[in-house]
Amino acid sequence: MAASDIDRVIQLLARLPGLGPRSARRAALHLLERKEKLLRPLADALATAADAVGPCSVCGNLDATDPCGVCADPRRDASVVCVVEGVADLWALERTAAFRGRYHVLGGTLSAIDGVGPEDLRIGALIGRVRDEAIKEVILATNATVDGQTTAHYITECLAETGVVVSRLAHGVPVGGELDYLDDGTLAAALKARRPY
Amino acid sequence: MAASDIDRVIQLLARLPGLGPRSARRAALHLLERKEKLLRPLADALATAADAVGPCSVCGNLDATDPCGVCADPRRDASVVCVVEGVADLWALERTAAFRGRYHVLGGTLSAIDGVGPEDLRIGALIGRVRDEAIKEVILATNATVDGQTTAHYITECLAETGVVVSRLAHGVPVGGELDYLDDGTLAAALKARRPY
Repeated sequence: MAASDIDRVIQLLARLPGLGPRSARRAALHLLERKEKLLRPLADALATAADAVGPCSVCGNLDATDPCGVCADPRRDASVVCVVEGVADLWALERTAAFRGRYHVLGGTLSAIDGVGPEDLRIGALIGRVRDEAIKEVILATNATVDGQTTAHYITECLAETGVVVSRLAHGVPVGGELDYLDDGTLAAALKARRPY
Repeated sequence: MAASDIDRVIQLLARLPGLGPRSARRAALHLLERKEKLLRPLADALATAADAVGPCSVCGNLDATDPCGVCADPRRDASVVCVVEGVADLWALERTAAFRGRYHVLGGTLSAIDGVGPEDLRIGALIGRVRDEAIKEVILATNATVDGQTTAHYITECLAETGVVVSRLAHGVPVGGELDYLDDGTLAAALKARRPY
């Protein structure tokens, strides 16, 4: 039977998103059968990342440097800040390579059910940045969920007195999407926000 | 954008079975956001396993001791050896707690397409064990695939002159299975191998 060392690896792997107990066992075995090619490199890479990677003190992004690569890049437009819920959203936007400004990671959304209030998010830090840095526009890129939209609304109110331009991502038909399969809310929003051809 | 330390973690995680590039990214972020609770413990557990765990010199099982826990257990029946393709199969049989003998891990199956011959598997070691140890029965528990059955057939021929009893797992209706959804081959095998009620 599996030794306790193996069991411990399986238990920890099973806590990763996308891996259950069964696939964690398969992954552990895969690692143990490739000790030098995969197991040791992964152990080393995780240890290195644990030492090196941390949140950026400016925007909340995860990086091996502080400020992070995005905040430290002089070619990026410091006057536009895109507000996202989490680092995963920041990464998703970076992959598009369509945004050349900076970011601000909230660390979640306001949620009455989960007891998350404004003081639990990095909203105060955002207001501070808008006051102290030469920021002209804040793009709210929270998720299009109830909590995400509530959070966006709250931030808009907080930023009202600073006079900064506040925008949000467009709602509409996803590129490649078929109208027939689209929900009514999105279709109505796309119709309302129609653009000249 | 993600630092190279983070990229390295993502790349290595993506090589685990069940994780693609997208879920590896999600898993890496999950780890980095839980540095002390998950990332460091996993890095340590993997390093410990890399140092401690290795193949059992007797049966080929993976364990932190050599001989492994199964081979070293005096309560287990040393006269029955169950031959499996891989360690995953051994673990699966151990989870049933229905077998109290020992194992022999082949490390794969004979495969003309993949160029795997008898010398690439631990077949010679199995014959040696049957000759040297007091083994009365060899249970062939290779997979019910073409390669698995070919391997079982080859091993049976190799063991013919030793006089040991060679058996194989029963084919039949899986427990909880419905006949209507069962393939013809399994159903025919179950009918042929019917037992008195």
